Amino acid sequence: MPDTSNKPLIAAMIGDPAGIGPEVCVKALACGELDDLCDSLLIGETAAVQRAAQVCGVMREVHRVDTPEAARGQAFIGVLDPGDLAPADYTVGKPSAAAGRAVVNWMSLGQQLGQRGQIDGLVLAPVDSASLKLGGLVQDIDELQPPDTHMLRLNGGLRVVPISEHIRLRDVAATVKQATVLELIRRLDSQLKRWGMAAPRIAVAGLNPHAMFEEERDEIAPAIAQARADGIDASGPVSPDAVFRLALEGRHDAVVTMYHDQGQIAVKTAAFAGACTIYMGLPYVMLNVPHGSAFDIAGRGTAQHDSLLAGLRTAAMLARGTAFLKQ
Amino acid sequence: MPDTSNKPLIAAMIGDPAGIGPEVCVKALACGELDDLCDSLLIGETAAVQRAAQVCGVMREVHRVDTPEAARGQAFIGVLDPGDLAPADYTVGKPSAAAGRAVVNWMSLGQQLGQRGQIDGLVLAPVDSASLKLGGLVQDIDELQPPDTHMLRLNGGLRVVPISEHIRLRDVAATVKQATVLELIRRLDSQLKRWGMAAPRIAVAGLNPHAMFEEERDEIAPAIAQARADGIDASGPVSPDAVFRLALEGRHDAVVTMYHDQGQIAVKTAAFAGACTIYMGLPYVMLNVPHGSAFDIAGRGTAQHDSLLAGLRTAAMLARGTAFLKQ
Repeated sequence: MPDTSNKPLIAAMIGDPAGIGPEVCVKALACGELDDLCDSLLIGETAAVQRAAQVCGVMREVHRVDTPEAARGQAFIGVLDPGDLAPADYTVGKPSAAAGRAVVNWMSLGQQLGQRGQIDGLVLAPVDSASLKLGGLVQDIDELQPPDTHMLRLNGGLRVVPISEHIRLRDVAATVKQATVLELIRRLDSQLKRWGMAAPRIAVAGLNPHAMFEEERDEIAPAIAQARADGIDASGPVSPDAVFRLALEGRHDAVVTMYHDQGQIAVKTAAFAGACTIYMGLPYVMLNVPHGSAFDIAGRGTAQHDSLLAGLRTAAMLARGTAFLKQ
Repeated sequence: MPDTSNKPLIAAMIGDPAGIGPEVCVKALACGELDDLCDSLLIGETAAVQRAAQVCGVMREVHRVDTPEAARGQAFIGVLDPGDLAPADYTVGKPSAAAGRAVVNWMSLGQQLGQRGQIDGLVLAPVDSASLKLGGLVQDIDELQPPDTHMLRLNGGLRVVPISEHIRLRDVAATVKQATVLELIRRLDSQLKRWGMAAPRIAVAGLNPHAMFEEERDEIAPAIAQARADGIDASGPVSPDAVFRLALEGRHDAVVTMYHDQGQIAVKTAAFAGACTIYMGLPYVMLNVPHGSAFDIAGRGTAQHDSLLAGLRTAAMLARGTAFLKQ
């Protein structure tokens, strides 16, 4: 019997209950591959999880739990359910206001548990933007990003984090400031170290073609110089069209990018299995998976759970600080 | 004996004579793989080509020719040499003003021959930016791009052409105008058709994250609508971080991009062998290869000629209008 004393406790928020989220969650928890790595539970509507377990032919029982801790070491799938949604409130395969409100609440609950140290990681199954809009608690999906966090994408050998997310390209240059770049280099370095990477080699992308204009000289290069003076292994500014290939070839462990698409084009074009997005800057691990709610196939039990399972595994290893150890 | 009557005549400009250009040129022409596809010649300094043939152990003889036509069907490698450079003017492995001036002249000569229909294609071996600067005829490599051309990158299944090249990111949004986007869609469509693609499916990338801001609505979408009204199979605006993956998966034949790095990040991260860059908007085929002059290994005969050979082969097939035929 493995030593369970220091197992992290990882929760998966089931995502939009009308989508494939509940199905990929129960498949991932029931497959047994996580059992030695972490304890796990779900956050969401118990009835949705039970329905998913049934259509997926999952053998583990599903029970509501009152605390995250109550799900530890159990043979059943524990669901922390605030009771804010009922099956009659929505239809499988369709967006709804009720589901849109519920997922916002479930995310808040998960984040509170993380802040209080009651869970070590929170994996977000896919939410649906139409449901969110109908629910009216947030205007769009971007509002679900916790304040003062950065979104780090893991995708095969690529680890990429941008200064900004969904802002207009014309507004990007104004956000590329020495202090901002330096802050993100520092945050990435300390985060990677906490996750178990002893000496992260951080590349900083330029903003402009071939990194040869004013912003590279006046903002990015000075930030890198300061980071290096602080003992961080930062390099650049590297030509944006070269830096991701260099990272894939093992020359850099992670890349700080100057805007959303700069890194996302590389990450999504390379397109490895098991990609996920981690919210950096939280005292616990929060990440989401790179697929949607897939309303068109929800309720059939056919959805693939590979991405969610990879997300849970990643969350567990990051929480243990062993993600980058050669084991 | 193959029918040679309609063979295209393709010239390779040898690039900086102090770099690996002459070596990859003689290796490509001597390997025999082009003989059935095109006639070929070199443009540059005869002595540099002879030296390269010697260090590379190439068996074909090298002779100066007075006209491109004189190189057709010959067993030797023909060199069109304006006589503007001598071996004493430069040192192998080092940049020089003389070489910088000579390559500009050789490019002009090649382009004149192309404009006059005396050659069907011009492949540019790598020039050196330090030599160009020393030569003083151009300030940087960008000035070698012929006016009113667009640079189309071919890389495996990716065919990508941007509205602009090396401009500051902060200046990009102002260049994304309906008329400009429409003009490039039209040019790409007609160019691909001339090269043998019967019904090109052209994707147009958005400018902003997820293609969801003003420029997509006010400039890009109307350009696409007009192109479609003209009978062009154009679609978009597509999210910039998704469009290249879709193209790689065969959903689009080519992508119009809104700025240099948008496409170059995808092209260079995917990194297939045999990539090249074609200058669109000329009555002949002009393209260059994606490696540099490699002064550090010049003169040894060890440089790999795969890229230049692929470039010559591509130029020949584009000139014949058979590049995209299933043969």
